[in-house]
Amino acid sequence: MINIPDSYFSGFVDGEGCFYVGIVPSKFNKNGFQIITEFHVSQNPRGRIVLDQLKNRLGCGYIKPNHKASTDDVSLVLVVKDNKDLKEKVIPFFLKNPLISGKYQDFLKFKETVELISQGEHLTDQGFKLILDLAYSMNTTHRRIPKGVILSRLKSSQAIR
Amino acid sequence: MINIPDSYFSGFVDGEGCFYVGIVPSKFNKNGFQIITEFHVSQNPRGRIVLDQLKNRLGCGYIKPNHKASTDDVSLVLVVKDNKDLKEKVIPFFLKNPLISGKYQDFLKFKETVELISQGEHLTDQGFKLILDLAYSMNTTHRRIPKGVILSRLKSSQAIR
Repeated sequence: MINIPDSYFSGFVDGEGCFYVGIVPSKFNKNGFQIITEFHVSQNPRGRIVLDQLKNRLGCGYIKPNHKASTDDVSLVLVVKDNKDLKEKVIPFFLKNPLISGKYQDFLKFKETVELISQGEHLTDQGFKLILDLAYSMNTTHRRIPKGVILSRLKSSQAIR
Repeated sequence: MINIPDSYFSGFVDGEGCFYVGIVPSKFNKNGFQIITEFHVSQNPRGRIVLDQLKNRLGCGYIKPNHKASTDDVSLVLVVKDNKDLKEKVIPFFLKNPLISGKYQDFLKFKETVELISQGEHLTDQGFKLILDLAYSMNTTHRRIPKGVILSRLKSSQAIR
């Protein structure tokens, strides 16, 4: 049993972690899009122990190969997707043990998104657009669908709910 | 003034830092090679504050552009090269606030190398070879000169000192 200080994890996640809000096409939602919220931390196998310990500390999430089909990329990723886990475990942990870098701003936007989803606001036109703004102002390097495309499709939807 | 726990830095460095031992050609050394020991941490500009704070905490090192000539790569790097600083500041800090991942093994080899250099052992044939073994057993992804090439050139040197 290793006793790792909580602030070790906040430092590690400040470097290696990601608070991600994605908006992807979905035929199950009336407006044609689904919001994905995900906390993840990738590591090569040498860092597996840190993922294991962080998973234990947070009390949620799972570890899987980052790219299962690849033989070159043997990295692993700790993933937390469940909104209840994000709200009740992940976010409180990083409120108590805050990030220092600019990633903290992403964390705050992530937190706001998770709260809006918990309140069902993502199902309203206004709430969805708010989350869209939050997501696309985060420091995510690659976006598959430009914000304008989502907005234009959203306009054609009579009602989201 | 931000109060950052030391273990935050050990977590951050466990993810983002590097304890590097390089062996490069040098016309100033009799055996034709120079040993470089360097602790560094790279960050994009959003993480600049962490580099600043770590530099302050360690009380040594400097921050510079990672690739000065590049317009695409705007990342920064905190560098500590001075052997006295490594021995008296960097290494004691990470002994008190240890890394958790497999990078800890690299740290131990780095520590041993810095100690050998401090004792002047790198100037002996035996000490140089010991450092070569330590360096090439570390998890450094890219080595410009294969170990065998260094060893073969080293053999041709009558005396290093």
